[in-house]
Amino acid sequence: MSPTRPETALAELGLSLPGLRPRAGNYVGSVRAGDLLFLSGQGADGWTGRVGAELSVAQGREAARDCALNLLAQTRDALGSLDRVGQIVKLLGFVACTEDFRDAPKVIDGASDLLAHLFGGRGQHARSAIGVQALPLGFAVEVEMVVAVAPREDGA
Amino acid sequence: MSPTRPETALAELGLSLPGLRPRAGNYVGSVRAGDLLFLSGQGADGWTGRVGAELSVAQGREAARDCALNLLAQTRDALGSLDRVGQIVKLLGFVACTEDFRDAPKVIDGASDLLAHLFGGRGQHARSAIGVQALPLGFAVEVEMVVAVAPREDGA
Amino acid sequence: MSPTRPETALAELGLSLPGLRPRAGNYVGSVRAGDLLFLSGQGADGWTGRVGAELSVAQGREAARDCALNLLAQTRDALGSLDRVGQIVKLLGFVACTEDFRDAPKVIDGASDLLAHLFGGRGQHARSAIGVQALPLGFAVEVEMVVAVAPREDGA
Repeated sequence: MSPTRPETALAELGLSLPGLRPRAGNYVGSVRAGDLLFLSGQGADGWTGRVGAELSVAQGREAARDCALNLLAQTRDALGSLDRVGQIVKLLGFVACTEDFRDAPKVIDGASDLLAHLFGGRGQHARSAIGVQALPLGFAVEVEMVVAVAPREDGA
Repeated sequence: MSPTRPETALAELGLSLPGLRPRAGNYVGSVRAGDLLFLSGQGADGWTGRVGAELSVAQGREAARDCALNLLAQTRDALGSLDRVGQIVKLLGFVACTEDFRDAPKVIDGASDLLAHLFGGRGQHARSAIGVQALPLGFAVEVEMVVAVAPREDGA
Repeated sequence: MSPTRPETALAELGLSLPGLRPRAGNYVGSVRAGDLLFLSGQGADGWTGRVGAELSVAQGREAARDCALNLLAQTRDALGSLDRVGQIVKLLGFVACTEDFRDAPKVIDGASDLLAHLFGGRGQHARSAIGVQALPLGFAVEVEMVVAVAPREDGA
């Protein structure tokens, strides 16, 4: 029996991929180089402010999950299907926070938990989670990602 | 008709590649791994302070453009010519700023606009733009870059 | 005469690789994609607070060295031996610091100096060093790394 497809698993959670967010500047959503897809950082609309002040850790987690959904929308746009994800390689997660904030990992787990759930072993990734001064448009969380692309079954 | 070469396009803007900046520590300007060239973060001399306080967004943009010029000087040093750039893959831009600063994308566009102009489609890159607490030597902006190297025409 | 092996050079410094630190969230210590090994950010236990306030630059350097040891422990875990390191490609170092802190490069040199010493030319890496608001668990320093994997002698 083959594993559940990522988009099926997403639907079972009651979630779906959002539309592509408008870009905030002169860049593109992703660039492929060889078998690696480098994705631009994605924030999440509706989640602004600093975690530890205006937002709770639980709210930050939701924001991070939404960042992951935006990254997956870009991934599908680039590869045609989430089935082409060979491996989630690396996340770099940024959390706008107060100076004494220690829980960036708990926040970014909102993205990591979703990816691990949707992709299983192919979703297990390396990661850094960093607390920063300020993010674009006042976002609470921003996440960037590197994906390894699976070979196409027809060898192309 | 072949496209304008990057160094020609640079000269037409009245710009030229600067000399290599001295390193601030025990690292090198770039390392190549396979077809990817990973470049060390570059600041820009003369641009210190926080954007949103001591510097305006317009000044930050100029700083980011100068960071890009320093990155391109390292790229030429590593590859011999900017003609060997196959694709600008990824920028990670850091802006020293105040806590309420929302415009890191406008600042880092100073680098992105230059790269898109010089390289056309090969200059379209993925990117994250982050507001941070402090940068080396008090720099206002620092940008790091990943470049995909084009094959040599002689196949080497 | 063959060069000193990295683990031998480490022992000559009176150092050894620590055990793997427990992960702070839902991620893994490293992911390999082709010939590149992407390592998760590592902090260093016992070093908390901001450099420039609670910690001196010298203490920050020690913390960065310990981050590098944690990264190398993960590298050995992934590759079986440090002899499989083909090249240290890239470091991204984060320093929790005050807003006027200018010396992130001196801090991250604690990691870079160790890597250059242990691996010689294969330890010369690209790098960015950034001052940030806050790190996981209150860490003073966190470093992430990309390594190029050397081919196995048996060609596997």
